[in-house]
Order: sequence, then C-alpha cells, then structure tokens
Amino acid sequence: MSSSAQLLSTPIMTGAEARVQIRRGNWRKPTCGLAPDYVQGNVAILPAELAADFHRFCFNNPKPCPLLGVSEVGDPNLPKLGNDLDIRTDVPRYRVFRNGEVLDEPDDISKYWRDDLVAFVIGCSFSFEQALLQNGIGIRHIEQDSNVPMYRTSIQTTPAGMFHGPTVVSMRPMKAADAIRAIQITSRYPAVHGAPIHIGNPELIGIHDISKPDFGDPVEIRAGELPVFWACGVTPQAVVMQAKPSFCITHAPGFMLLTDLKNIDFSVF
Amino acid sequence: MSSSAQLLSTPIMTGAEARVQIRRGNWRKPTCGLAPDYVQGNVAILPAELAADFHRFCFNNPKPCPLLGVSEVGDPNLPKLGNDLDIRTDVPRYRVFRNGEVLDEPDDISKYWRDDLVAFVIGCSFSFEQALLQNGIGIRHIEQDSNVPMYRTSIQTTPAGMFHGPTVVSMRPMKAADAIRAIQITSRYPAVHGAPIHIGNPELIGIHDISKPDFGDPVEIRAGELPVFWACGVTPQAVVMQAKPSFCITHAPGFMLLTDLKNIDFSVF
Repeated sequence: MSSSAQLLSTPIMTGAEARVQIRRGNWRKPTCGLAPDYVQGNVAILPAELAADFHRFCFNNPKPCPLLGVSEVGDPNLPKLGNDLDIRTDVPRYRVFRNGEVLDEPDDISKYWRDDLVAFVIGCSFSFEQALLQNGIGIRHIEQDSNVPMYRTSIQTTPAGMFHGPTVVSMRPMKAADAIRAIQITSRYPAVHGAPIHIGNPELIGIHDISKPDFGDPVEIRAGELPVFWACGVTPQAVVMQAKPSFCITHAPGFMLLTDLKNIDFSVF
Repeated sequence: MSSSAQLLSTPIMTGAEARVQIRRGNWRKPTCGLAPDYVQGNVAILPAELAADFHRFCFNNPKPCPLLGVSEVGDPNLPKLGNDLDIRTDVPRYRVFRNGEVLDEPDDISKYWRDDLVAFVIGCSFSFEQALLQNGIGIRHIEQDSNVPMYRTSIQTTPAGMFHGPTVVSMRPMKAADAIRAIQITSRYPAVHGAPIHIGNPELIGIHDISKPDFGDPVEIRAGELPVFWACGVTPQAVVMQAKPSFCITHAPGFMLLTDLKNIDFSVF
C-alpha cells in the first residue's frame, strides 16, 4: 500500500497530524481539503531588515493580509500556530527567491534557513470556503477541481516601506441568494479575509477580462450568477515579488501551512 | 406658532411622545424620520375569523412579514409594543377596506372598531434604514425625498388559508461596497426584514421594468450601482387586498405605527 493510499484510508486529520505527514514527505500535493477543520496559512519569510516594513504592510492592509503569526527573528518555530510547528519543514512546497527571481522550489528549506529570517503566516480563503461548503454553497473552482481564479485590481494597497502594489482578489461566481448568504458567512471570519470587497461588474475594480485571471484558473460564470470578489492572500506574495527583495521564501501557491488553529474558532459570532 | 412648527422645534421624540402628538392630531404626515430611534410598524386589522390564517401567513413568511405584535381579540391595546398604545387612534392615517375596496381614509378608526377585530403589527424597513444611515450609507429615496420603490416579484409567498400572492420587495440602489456593508448591517436585524433577498439583475425575480415600481416612487440607479432588494412589509398588505376580506383596516402607506421598542434592541449582534 502506497503512502498516499494509506492517507486516503486515514480518517480526517488534524492540522498537527497533517504537518507530520508533510514533514515525512507523505503529502506533496496542494493542501486544499487536507485537515479541513484547521486553519491554513500563506507563508512569507523575509530577512529581518525587511520584516518591520512587511509587518506594517500587513497591518495597513488587513483584508488581503490577515496576519495569523510572526516568528521571532531566526526562530523557525511558531508555537502559537502549532506546538511542534517548524516553518522549515512543514510546508509541502516552497519557493525561494533571490532578487525577485525563483531560485528553487524545494520541499524543505532547512538549508536556506538563516538566523536573520522572520516568518509571516497570513490567513487563507480555505478557512471561509470550508464554512461556505458547510452552509451548502457550491464553490465553482472546487467543483471544477481547479485553482481559484485571482485577479490584480485597480484597488491599491496602502504601502509600507518598499512594499506596495495592487490588491489581488479571488473570485467565486454565485447566484444572488448564495452571494448574500456568502457575505453573511464570510463576515463572521474577519481574520481570514472576511466579507467580499466587491460584487458584480469586474470593470469597476479594474478587471477587464474576467475569463483571464492573473493567477489560478478561469471558472465558468453561469447565467444569473454574480462574480463575488474577496481580498486574497496572494496580495502580499505579489507585493513581495514586485518589491524584489534580496532574499525571500514563500509557500508555493496552493501548498499551504497547516496550523493547530481551528477554522471554527475564527468565527466572531 | 402652528403645531407643526412647534414639532419642528421639539427635540427628537420617543415613540411614546410621537404617539401622543399623532393622537392629538398634531402629526398627519408620513412617519419617516419621526422618533428615529424607535421601531415603526405596518398595521393590518382583520376580523377574528380571518386572524388565524393571517397569523399563519406571517409565520410562514417571516422575511416579508416579521410580526412584532398581535392584539387579543377585540382589544385595541398592544401593551408589549407601547404602554398606552391604542391602535384605534395612534396611526396618523388608516385605510378601511370592505370586500377589497377602500371605504375610507380616516385618522381615527374608533367608529370602525369591533369586538371581533385583531390587530397585527409587522416590522418595517425604517428600522434598518436608520441603521444604514448611521453607518454612512446613503439611501437614494431619502435623498430624493420620495417613497421607497417597491415591486411585485415572481417569488411566491407560502400561502395560508385565503392569503397568498407574490412577495413584494423594496429596492435601494448602492455601489457594491455599500451593498456588501448593507447586507452585513441588515443581517443584524432579522426581525425587521433582515438581509436582502436579491441583488443585481431585477429580471431574475420577475421585475421587468425597474423604472416602474408597483408601489412608491422610482429612484435613479447610477452607473456602477447594483439594485439591492429587501422583502417588504407591503407584502402582507398586498396579500390582504388581493384576498378581498369582507372587512379590514390597514395603515395608509408611509403612515406607520410608532412603538416603544427601540431599533437598537432589534440588533442581534
């Protein structure tokens, strides 16, 4: 029996159990649907000299950059996000950048770790998608088994130091009644992007061709559906890439960090 | 100094103070903006033989018919809605119907009162409009100093006995960001219509000409705005009129009952 067949037959995992599987090399796929009750995070790792600016950037832009955790300088552990969590080994795929160029896509960054690095973990839409699905709202890109479509918009982030750029949004098409319900549900999760930032006409936020996302895959928008746009955790990644810092590590898109935090605990009411 | 000039110089009234002014004949205008912190209600008064069906109709259709109070048979007082409240004198204008035809539009229904009448008071969008305004969201029909546009839709109510018919909606045009915020705010008021029931394309709910409301006045929809539709308290009135009961009294549209309930107490979070 292969490792992945073993995983398939395993009951639904906790975040901690998923991290163990990832660390052992048993999970090298996107993390969508893995440990579905647990919060997943976007990861950005920067040298300390840039960390204060990046932290301020997240603070200035809480909807696209809801910060879940920040490591101490040089410390690869984030105990508030997971007891045994090691940011060097617990993400199934990383991207290592030098001066804005991808240098490597490893599944372990131990050899790249430095004493001056600071890890930022930022909330992710998987948390609210889980809540939408539990409320019976279909999510097109999950039905299509593709990545969520994401778009650069004309909505500028509030800059901080070297970090600036457009807000990136994710889009989910829905019938009006589902869109209204989805606004209610995601409003309960302000720390994982919260309510949408736009609904309806894409042109109004600078998206000129909805069939051509800047990241992820296009999805079908059916007759009578409205496109609903959420601020997206790809925003800080896009901003970091644009700033071309001398050194930086992120997760690879879709390959997120599993935490011990439960999605349900992020519901404010 | 005229009575209305005196009223204009009066500090903002409570619901009880407004009822006294109405009862004394000092307020014969629509009640929009009167005692703005207090809940206003739609009124339907029916013979006891129809009351059980109408009560069940409201129960079956809580979004258009959020019931605030029901009188005892023949009792013109509704003490839970106001200590001194007398449904025969406290509405600034009534409509008296016989077999579905308007018989009279009096400002006092004492002479029509009967021992078999039951009064129903149903929540009204003034409650949530107050919350929208306090949150800085402009309301077009208030800016235009006109009545809210209302439309019969293809969304059927759940019938009860003789009462059946289409859901009537009120419409407020908003930019997407305001529409999202308005969905959040009105979701906090489930007992006064709550969240919208539709947003965007009017055709999808059977409204073929948005410039021609079935009740109220048309309002401008500006470029980049979405029409946002809430279930409307005119629904039970339209249903009662369509059912043509032998006898029935309602408030005249816009001339509502002031209660001692505060809008803020209807916010569930």
